Parts: sequence; structure tokens; C-alpha cells
Amino acid sequence: MSNEVHFQEDTNGLSDPKGYLAAAVSADIRGNGGDRLDMGIVYSLSPCAAAGVFTKNAVKAAPVLDCERILGLGTPIHGIVANSGNANACTGTQGIQDSLEMIRSAEAACGSPENGFLVCSTGRIGDLLPMDRIKPAIAKLGESIEKDSACGAEFATCILTSDTRNKTCTAQFEINGKLVSVGGAAKGAGMIQPDMATMLAFVTTDIAASSAELKSLLVEAVDPTFNAITVDGDMSTNDTALVLANGESGVKLDDQSRALFKEALYRVCDCLADKIVSDGERITKVVEILISGAASNSDAENIARAIGNSLLVKTSWYGNDPNWGRLMDALGYADAQIDQYVIDISYDDVSALVSGDPIPNNKPKWKEVVSQSRFTIKIDMHQGDGIYRLRASDLTEGYVDFNKSE
Amino acid sequence: MSNEVHFQEDTNGLSDPKGYLAAAVSADIRGNGGDRLDMGIVYSLSPCAAAGVFTKNAVKAAPVLDCERILGLGTPIHGIVANSGNANACTGTQGIQDSLEMIRSAEAACGSPENGFLVCSTGRIGDLLPMDRIKPAIAKLGESIEKDSACGAEFATCILTSDTRNKTCTAQFEINGKLVSVGGAAKGAGMIQPDMATMLAFVTTDIAASSAELKSLLVEAVDPTFNAITVDGDMSTNDTALVLANGESGVKLDDQSRALFKEALYRVCDCLADKIVSDGERITKVVEILISGAASNSDAENIARAIGNSLLVKTSWYGNDPNWGRLMDALGYADAQIDQYVIDISYDDVSALVSGDPIPNNKPKWKEVVSQSRFTIKIDMHQGDGIYRLRASDLTEGYVDFNKSE
Repeated sequence: MSNEVHFQEDTNGLSDPKGYLAAAVSADIRGNGGDRLDMGIVYSLSPCAAAGVFTKNAVKAAPVLDCERILGLGTPIHGIVANSGNANACTGTQGIQDSLEMIRSAEAACGSPENGFLVCSTGRIGDLLPMDRIKPAIAKLGESIEKDSACGAEFATCILTSDTRNKTCTAQFEINGKLVSVGGAAKGAGMIQPDMATMLAFVTTDIAASSAELKSLLVEAVDPTFNAITVDGDMSTNDTALVLANGESGVKLDDQSRALFKEALYRVCDCLADKIVSDGERITKVVEILISGAASNSDAENIARAIGNSLLVKTSWYGNDPNWGRLMDALGYADAQIDQYVIDISYDDVSALVSGDPIPNNKPKWKEVVSQSRFTIKIDMHQGDGIYRLRASDLTEGYVDFNKSE
Repeated sequence: MSNEVHFQEDTNGLSDPKGYLAAAVSADIRGNGGDRLDMGIVYSLSPCAAAGVFTKNAVKAAPVLDCERILGLGTPIHGIVANSGNANACTGTQGIQDSLEMIRSAEAACGSPENGFLVCSTGRIGDLLPMDRIKPAIAKLGESIEKDSACGAEFATCILTSDTRNKTCTAQFEINGKLVSVGGAAKGAGMIQPDMATMLAFVTTDIAASSAELKSLLVEAVDPTFNAITVDGDMSTNDTALVLANGESGVKLDDQSRALFKEALYRVCDCLADKIVSDGERITKVVEILISGAASNSDAENIARAIGNSLLVKTSWYGNDPNWGRLMDALGYADAQIDQYVIDISYDDVSALVSGDPIPNNKPKWKEVVSQSRFTIKIDMHQGDGIYRLRASDLTEGYVDFNKSE
């Protein structure tokens, strides 16, 4: 293996780096007697440095509050316990007790020291967790972990809600003959407008790093990836991205390894973010919106988000309609410096608007571009150097039908 | 008639006040050989004071720029020329020339002095107006106006786009034996998140008032009405609300008449705003969101808009699903001061959440409320005295289907 990052999708993800075990079970959290995998544990016998970024929603779920609290303690982290089917959000004081009980049960089941577990929940808001089914499920997970279970793919399944497929990947590189791995798993699908997405994203690595270093690299990786996708513009109560680093590779994060590790972490986050948007609820397309020439990067972001969240824009994509007028309308109400008479717009490499003047002769070509399941919209604002990339999905009747009741 | 405001819906609207004529024709602006009414003129032989409020979108259509320019001149206004089917937006310098030519043609057709006409367009963005069909249509409108045409209802029809019905109303009151009338007409349907709505709204009155007085009363009436509705959260390039006052009633706007006129103007705007949201594209419900106890009125507005524009909230309304968890999620990402543990939520008068704790026993009653075509969501934030009322529609598969191509 040469001195570069090797990357693979649809792997075991979190259990690929050395020293990580993973297991999943069915706890019937939805209470419908089903047997889908809905609880899981990721565990490292060696203590991990850890870092996380969380939803900016003022209504935070109990497990989000617990993760923030435990990461604040600075105790060594050994694992993550997670469930789908119930978000443990808006569940009052009972929800806070339940979240803590999940942590304590996982610690006991795996033999972890106190405050060695982080906790994540995703699913319906407002219902109490079925703790009578969750506690025995966690005990069972502990038994699997004791048997050296390396079921990262099953863990990736147990966190899914309205997702239609697993989201995992693994990046690896070599330093001085030692292999470093970065494994990832995520869930997304609805309530997706990051900062963060409605998503859980987990990354494990066997590099050795401090929690502070991890935090700064995680934030850097999350911003252009998980925070730059949108399905429906809704920001969740439970969004969480966590990274654990146990040092088992024997490689330290230092000047020699940093560039490769950053690239590996970025590629894992970028791949998972793409998997989240492309598996958005009942979507048919992923559109990459590339804004350049804005007065600032934040202007560029505002413009991209106004476009990527406009219902009229998203429905026109769905209908294969290259309606650039709706793009102009949406960017016009973005909070940004705008001169409509100098804007260039193209679909992939086909011009639609040059200096604010339409190129109607290209219409058949725009239509071809918009008919693809992936395409790019490039907009040059000619106001400065600000850039931003947002990946957005279309909006379909299927989304409405799917979400009209839960 | 006693000293109070009398109000009626589905009237002739703009031609009800004394001295106003109205006419509409088909100019086949969509170019499909159809004969639907798509151009109209409202005209007053007596000069009018006038005022307008316009879209805050940075991409403004040519007719919006013309209205702002002409109102800035302070010339007496005699009329409005309007068309549907084409917004004359994002049409470059040719669009600006076309808008001015519509004004000059209308002035010539009606014998108005220069800069005596305002102009409005609504419809598809990005196509040039078919001026070869528009100019003869305006000449024909002039002939109808000469024949004393009082076709306010037909004018209200000619401005419609995806609307399914006319939107008109008239308010009247008496002062010292003299009758004062306020007539209104509007179009809405899609791209509706005011400040302003994607809407055109016109008001005529025969009271005598200065343009400055009219402007201040118009702004006061528009804020809690046209600016407090949302269908899809998109803000248009063409939004316009105009009021003309010709003084023909013989009543002046003064201390004696002001309260009654304000009430009449408010009721006309409120009725038209309600007609716009309840005729939103393929909607099935209108939900009144009443926020109280926010830290400020602007916090209350941010909370109401986050809820009223959330796709997940809107689809759950459509599905008769009283999913208050989605309300909590949406208000959590509003830019506002929030403590999730003190919030009260009710559907009509049925409590869903008290001090942040759910009242699950009321679930059958919430479901009944949400199954109605109109209901109210009341949220007390317990943070201060801030209040806001927003009227929002649900989101249906029909909306997506309707907008996937134009």
C-alpha cells in the first residue's frame, strides 16, 4: 500500500479499525412485534479519545444532552449505545432518566468504567422509550460484544429509520508499515437540513489522537459534508456526529500522519453525507449547487440554501423542468448581495443565463441535463470570491405521502 | 346605514367605489390560442393619491421597478394595467422597455396624463412579454373603459394564475350621510410566503387622502394580513399591493373618518389574504398558528414561520396527524429564545403539551381537531409578551404534482 488513502464503500464500517467490536439486536422499540434490528453497541476495549458535534436545535433530545455532558467530563470513552424507532426527544424528565439508564446498562453489559458510553436515539419524537424491552436488549448486546462480535454492518442497519439502505465506508492508509483505518456509519433520510442533518453519524479510528485534536478535525470535516446537504430543510432534535480514536494502530496523529488522516476522515464524512442525501425520503435526484463569485462564503451559503430548500425549485427538478426562473426567484430572497443583471447560471456545462440574459436556444440541452438523476447547477454571482457547495434532493409526491402520517 | 363598517365578499371589488371603471380582455399571453381573460385595466377619471408595498426579493420584476419609480414621482395616478401568464421578471433590458410600453399604451388608450398608470405582471419568470398581442389588447381595454365598463369582477379574473377562484370584497361605511367604499381584488396561489406573498393585491377607495397617509395605513394593514400567510415559503419577484384613493365620496380621511376607514381597509386586506391562503395550490387545510408568550414579537414571528414552513409539519397536517413532536422540532430551530420545558401547545382548545409534558390521553381529541379543514394551533412560550398570528396551508402531493413542471 503506497502513501495514499484507500477508500471503500459498503464495508463493515465502524468495526473495521483495529480494536472495535459492534453488535446489533432487535428490541422491538416501535412496539409492533417486529424483529428489525433497532439497537446496537460499538465498543473498544482500549479507552478512546472522543469528540462530537450536535444539532443546533434549541429543543435537544435527552441523549444529545447526555453526549455533550459526558464529552465535557473528559473521561475515556469505550463505546456508543444507539437505538432507532424512538428519538427520546420532548420526553421531559423521564426521558433524561431513560437516557442515563441506557448508558449505565451499556457500561454494565460491556464492563466499561463509568461515563465510558455515549448514547444516541433516533425516530419518533414525544414518546417515552420502552425501557422494559431496552434493558434486556442491552444485556444481550453485551453478551455479543464479549464474543468478539465485529458486526459493523449490522450496527449500521440498526440505526436506520426511513432510510432504504445501509450507509457505511472505510478509509485506510499506511504510515511506516502500520495500517491506519477510519470507519464510518450513518443514518439520515428525513428531517435533513444539517447544521446538522437529521442524522446520526459515527466514525471510529485506530489512530491515537487527543480529544481536542479530534474535535477540531471533526468540525473541519463535518462543515463541507454533513452540514452541506439538504433534503427537506428541517433540522432535527437529535443530530449527532461522533468520532472515537483508540490508538490501536500504533500510529499517532502528528505532522507525518495528519494530512493523510484528514483526507481519510473527510472522505468518510463526504461519502456518508452523499449517501444520506441520495437516500432522502422518496427522492429521485441529487443536485449539486455550486455557488461562486458571491460577496462572501456566507452569502454563497445563503444563496445555495435558498435554492436547495425552495419547494418550487425542488418540485421543478422532480419534473425534469429546467426552470431557471425559480432559481433566480429563490436566490433573490436569500440574505446576500445580489445584482440580477450580472449573474451567470449553467446546468452542468450548458449555459442558461449569461450576465442576467437568458440563452433560450440551449433549452433542449438544459432539459437533458435536468433529466439525469444527478447534475450540477453552477451560479456565478460576480460579486466577489465567496463559494459554497450544497447537495440537495428534489421533492416528490412520495415524500408528502410518506410523511403525512408516521 | 349606521356608523359601522359593512362588509361583503365576492363583489365587483375594485369598481365598487365611486368613479372607478374596470375592464378585462384576453390577450392570449400564454400563447396557447386560449381565450381566458389575462389583461385588465382599472381606471379613475379623477386623479388618485396612491401608495404601494412591494416584494423584498432582490430580484425584482420590471413592473415592480416601474411602480416604485412612478410612485416616487408623486404624479397623480389614474389607473393600473395588469396581466397574468407572464411575470416580466428576469427579462433583462427588453423587459424594462416592455413594462414602460405597457404603461404608455394604457395612458394613451384611456387618455391619462403621463406617469398616470401603474403596471403589474404575474406568471412565468424569464420569458419576454408578447408585446404584439399586448398592445392591441390594451387598445381594446381603453375602448371598454370609454364605455363606462364597471367590470371589477372580470378584472379580478384576468389577474389569476394558478388560483381556482376570484378573490374580491368590498367594505363600506357612512359619514355624515355620505357613503365611503373600499374595494379589493387579489391573486395568489403559489410562491406564497409574503413579505409579500406571491400575490397582486389592489384596493380602490373613494375617500380623499394623501399618498403619505395611504402609504402608512397600507403598511399597517398589510403586515398582519398579506405578510402573515404562507403556502410554500417562496417569496416572489412580483409581489405588489397597491391602493388608489380618488376622493369621489366627498369624504376626507380625517379624525372623524380615520377609524372607520382603517377598519374597512383592514377587513378588505384580511379577507383577501385569507382567500389567498385558502386557495393555495392544491391545499386541503388552513391552519392558524397563534404564538403567545414569546420573548418578543419578532421571536413569535420566527417561531410561527418555522412551524408554518416546515415540510414535515405541513405534510402531517395533510395526513390528519396531530404530530406535535414536529411542532417542537420546528420551533426549536427558529431564531428565538426557547425553553422546551415550559411550553404549552393546544389544538383549538385541546391541550397537547403542558409545561413541556405531553397529554397523551387527549390524542383522540387532537386527531379530531386536525381532521378539520380549518383549525388553530396555540403555543404559549412562557418567555415574555411576544405574539404573532400566521395563517399557513398544508402541503399535498397535489402541490408537488402541480409544480413539477409549468
